[in-house]
Amino acid sequence: MLSAQYKLNGRIWIESSDGPLIGPGRVDLLERIQQCGSIRQAALQMQMSYRQAWQLIDDMNTRLNEPVVMSHRGGKGGGYAEVTENGLRVIQQFKIIEQQFQKFLAACSEQLKTD
Amino acid sequence: MLSAQYKLNGRIWIESSDGPLIGPGRVDLLERIQQCGSIRQAALQMQMSYRQAWQLIDDMNTRLNEPVVMSHRGGKGGGYAEVTENGLRVIQQFKIIEQQFQKFLAACSEQLKTD
Repeated sequence: MLSAQYKLNGRIWIESSDGPLIGPGRVDLLERIQQCGSIRQAALQMQMSYRQAWQLIDDMNTRLNEPVVMSHRGGKGGGYAEVTENGLRVIQQFKIIEQQFQKFLAACSEQLKTD
Repeated sequence: MLSAQYKLNGRIWIESSDGPLIGPGRVDLLERIQQCGSIRQAALQMQMSYRQAWQLIDDMNTRLNEPVVMSHRGGKGGGYAEVTENGLRVIQQFKIIEQQFQKFLAACSEQLKTD
């Protein structure tokens, strides 16, 4: 009943009983912090406020057993932010699942065409 | 890095270049219309306005090659709404994909625990 013009789309996130914890947006934020070493710069790139970015990071740092980002104050450049090993694992783990999800979506979209 | 308290969640929908066309909410609406034979009753059950429900139905009827719901006016009971064969196929097709998606989420949630 559905022609080739239709496809399956969706979104996924990791959650606990306290609600969503890790999704595509937060992983994007972590990756940008990793690249530019700054929460402020990463927030700017994503067109969100520093406060908003900081709250997302703080939520992950608080709810995970280990922090995902560490902030270092002072020094020559005026401090920097660093994605921890745990944060890198979170990024990798989510990206692997996201890849599997994209495959699932593609397979189901094919299925729609032949149904 | 993620303990047993975390799980993967998500949502899926079928879309065309004009945007989302069929998702869990619309399928729920179709099933309720099928059960009670009335768009108005189905809308009430879902706590949406008749207008909103009608717009969702109209969108599917317009964008799919065949309508999903037919309205019959007049008669003893003051008319009724009927889910078409095409509508029933849409419901079934989406539910099969939704089941596969729930399996995918469960498998990934297991994977999170062992990573």
